[in-house]
Amino acid sequence: MSVPSPLHASPPPALLTDLYQLTMMQGYYRQGLHTQEATFDLYYRRNPYRGGYAVWAGLEPALAYLETVRFTPAELEYLGTLGLFDAAFLEALAAWRFRAEVTAFPEGSVVFPNEPLLTVRGPLWEAQLVETALLNILNFQTLVATKAARCLSAAQASPHGGAVVEFGTRRAQGPDGALGAARAAAVGGATGTSNVQAAALYGLRPVGTHAHAWVESFPSELDAFRAYARHYPDATTLLLDTFDTLESGLPNALTVARELRAAGHDLRGVRLDSGDLAYLSARVRAALDEAGFPGVQIMASNDLSEFVIESVIREGGRIDIYGVGTQLATGGGEGGGALGGVYKLVALGGEDRMKLTGDPRKTSVPGHKRVWRATDAAGRLVLDVIAAHGEPQPQPGERVSDPANPLRSSRLPTGLTWTQPRQVVMAGGQRQAAAEALPAIQARAAADLARLPEGTLRLLNPHVYRVSLSRTLQHRRDALMAGLRERHGL
Amino acid sequence: MSVPSPLHASPPPALLTDLYQLTMMQGYYRQGLHTQEATFDLYYRRNPYRGGYAVWAGLEPALAYLETVRFTPAELEYLGTLGLFDAAFLEALAAWRFRAEVTAFPEGSVVFPNEPLLTVRGPLWEAQLVETALLNILNFQTLVATKAARCLSAAQASPHGGAVVEFGTRRAQGPDGALGAARAAAVGGATGTSNVQAAALYGLRPVGTHAHAWVESFPSELDAFRAYARHYPDATTLLLDTFDTLESGLPNALTVARELRAAGHDLRGVRLDSGDLAYLSARVRAALDEAGFPGVQIMASNDLSEFVIESVIREGGRIDIYGVGTQLATGGGEGGGALGGVYKLVALGGEDRMKLTGDPRKTSVPGHKRVWRATDAAGRLVLDVIAAHGEPQPQPGERVSDPANPLRSSRLPTGLTWTQPRQVVMAGGQRQAAAEALPAIQARAAADLARLPEGTLRLLNPHVYRVSLSRTLQHRRDALMAGLRERHGL
Repeated sequence: MSVPSPLHASPPPALLTDLYQLTMMQGYYRQGLHTQEATFDLYYRRNPYRGGYAVWAGLEPALAYLETVRFTPAELEYLGTLGLFDAAFLEALAAWRFRAEVTAFPEGSVVFPNEPLLTVRGPLWEAQLVETALLNILNFQTLVATKAARCLSAAQASPHGGAVVEFGTRRAQGPDGALGAARAAAVGGATGTSNVQAAALYGLRPVGTHAHAWVESFPSELDAFRAYARHYPDATTLLLDTFDTLESGLPNALTVARELRAAGHDLRGVRLDSGDLAYLSARVRAALDEAGFPGVQIMASNDLSEFVIESVIREGGRIDIYGVGTQLATGGGEGGGALGGVYKLVALGGEDRMKLTGDPRKTSVPGHKRVWRATDAAGRLVLDVIAAHGEPQPQPGERVSDPANPLRSSRLPTGLTWTQPRQVVMAGGQRQAAAEALPAIQARAAADLARLPEGTLRLLNPHVYRVSLSRTLQHRRDALMAGLRERHGL
Repeated sequence: MSVPSPLHASPPPALLTDLYQLTMMQGYYRQGLHTQEATFDLYYRRNPYRGGYAVWAGLEPALAYLETVRFTPAELEYLGTLGLFDAAFLEALAAWRFRAEVTAFPEGSVVFPNEPLLTVRGPLWEAQLVETALLNILNFQTLVATKAARCLSAAQASPHGGAVVEFGTRRAQGPDGALGAARAAAVGGATGTSNVQAAALYGLRPVGTHAHAWVESFPSELDAFRAYARHYPDATTLLLDTFDTLESGLPNALTVARELRAAGHDLRGVRLDSGDLAYLSARVRAALDEAGFPGVQIMASNDLSEFVIESVIREGGRIDIYGVGTQLATGGGEGGGALGGVYKLVALGGEDRMKLTGDPRKTSVPGHKRVWRATDAAGRLVLDVIAAHGEPQPQPGERVSDPANPLRSSRLPTGLTWTQPRQVVMAGGQRQAAAEALPAIQARAAADLARLPEGTLRLLNPHVYRVSLSRTLQHRRDALMAGLRERHGL
């Protein structure tokens, strides 16, 4: 963090879990199954927003949770009141710690459907409890980081460039929802937040303008603009639409810009908050340029999304900074609102595990795995292969299959460089490296987004990045499925 | 709260605000405007989910925030590092407290667009700072409480009845997003939550079943069912779809139901988590009834919403308990994801204030107001009238107008009983009554929902509940608008 933080982001408590995790834990404990080695994969099945990728976010807060999670006496006392848990189990819970191994993509990586983003391997009851909090943290962070990346890629499609800042606290899902959103938005590329607590907590740049109420608190708009500029001569962004953007706000802002310049300062920007943003921003840009203020930035707010940004640019809008609120802070919009990440048992006691269910898309891929990522000579991402943990590096010509449709298979091309992007980030419940600071995570996201294959950033109907299963893993899955069907007479 | 709570819901800190609130506060302070009496109204413009109402929620957490909010030394130190605030202002902030008056609908009331749900009246800088946190808390709580009410009204449309429980922690927007959602869902009518921390914190009923992983951890599904039933003989709900709901899960559950009965216990329920819920639930209900288990309840989960519940019932589904996850915990779905509540300056120093903007729907209604609510002889809600604060009770025959369209006016009917549902809940920064417990709030919501006019509960294209402006208020608004246009040459 770049500033001293007066506040602390507390990891969630042990009770932030679903009741069934605790009833299952007690069951495993009584059955003597609780210390069996289990492997759980965390993954999602569809990219958010019908897009071509997700930006993996939330790993650092998730690890902070795993490192510290334990049951306090007050929590155990509460559990004792429920009539579900016996004294022996509650005593065992008091000593319970998370000491398992965690393998994960580094935070900020671009990731794709069906690949294990995070794998927990350790005693069954340790791996089981943490499901709820892990999904809660990682689903939301990844959802919002991906939204920010989409807004930013839309903004940067303009020949004049464009930045994104997070403005959504008032519509976010509770106080900590707002904090989490500001953090995740930064991972995905937002360069500031209006939320002062989030800025303090995560070392982000706090940004802001003024509200309509400021203008209404003065005898006239010009008085209000002058007063704000007097107090913040080097940090003033004037809101133009309290009465009328072009007829009142713009001429008054030009007056203040001239007065600031005469006093040796520069008006920083103006903000548009209603109306036709493409038309208004082009008109305001032209007026500012003509008056000799090409450096005054135009900020826009008012229900922005990646699609609004794209259309404003397509229609000639000249906005420098997009203050994205509701849709960014809540990860909202078509195909958004929540990331459907899941956490599935894939091995237990050294044996593969899977569920079948009535929905083939929900059938899991069993076994302890590795993810291999291929890049071309230019360093661009090409495809990912999910393989069994012991398998060697994928080879050219090797046949791989689509995890969602085993009948669809293909051969791996030549000329690829293979890496294993996932790392063991926790062993024995201890982090294997120091916590990563947000700037490093942001830089990784920006670099990964820049090396996506052409068309993957497209907002709708993007290029589908290929994630394949190795032949070995596909065979193991087929064999397990056949065995399960036979055993259950299906 | 009905159970001792080992955890505390902390109100958000003073820094949970937008940067511009603080820069405006300093500006007001330096201008000597900060102690002018301001009136701000909090309201929303469109019902969430395109529905006919909202359930007003979050007032208690909002009041807890207002009672306690102050700047800590660490927060002030952080603000000092930003280069925006001077020592005199920071010193004033250190002594800053919220001592204003708050008028609001009681929590759990049904409310409608454009009426002031909460009004803050007091020194301008007090009223300004709290905007962000108030909107953050109240928008989210109201959004989710309304979603819960919609899900419950859909479930209760079945001739067999139906209950709703909240299952969404893993998809909620961060740890506290999950807690807030569980609380708000309870306000709107959910009768339990899977979130153990939320249950402890708010005295809710924790509910749960078991996961697929439990079944996969045993040699067979029957072994897994038997084990769970052995540990929880009076609290077992078996998940049927790990391998195949009708071919495997159901017969195994019937076996366990018989074994439990032989041992003097009752299987509590079964859970469906995939496939055609209408078809499967009807088949499972028939099989349970035929086998002599009419008391075993059927629970369903898997991406439920009010619309899925409605269609399952329409097609003959027989579900007793709907475990609603993602859509409830995030207030998701068409027209959801966030409630667009706003907080607007309506009076300052005894004078009316408003903004015009380019968007007529965003033009505010000026002045300190009262809300009058009319009921008919049967106690059913009929319409609300927003009047100026000093106006007497609305009279039959009085002409009132549509706040969104002043040209549309009508006369008030006879035979109505008028009440003022809003109360002064805080004066001088002190609550005027003890904090309300959740059961009282839930009861108010249930009672208010039951007295809505016919068709208002309809999920889509509902009856539009009438909210009108008094003639006096309409005239004041017109006069102010004309004056503003003239003064700004518009």
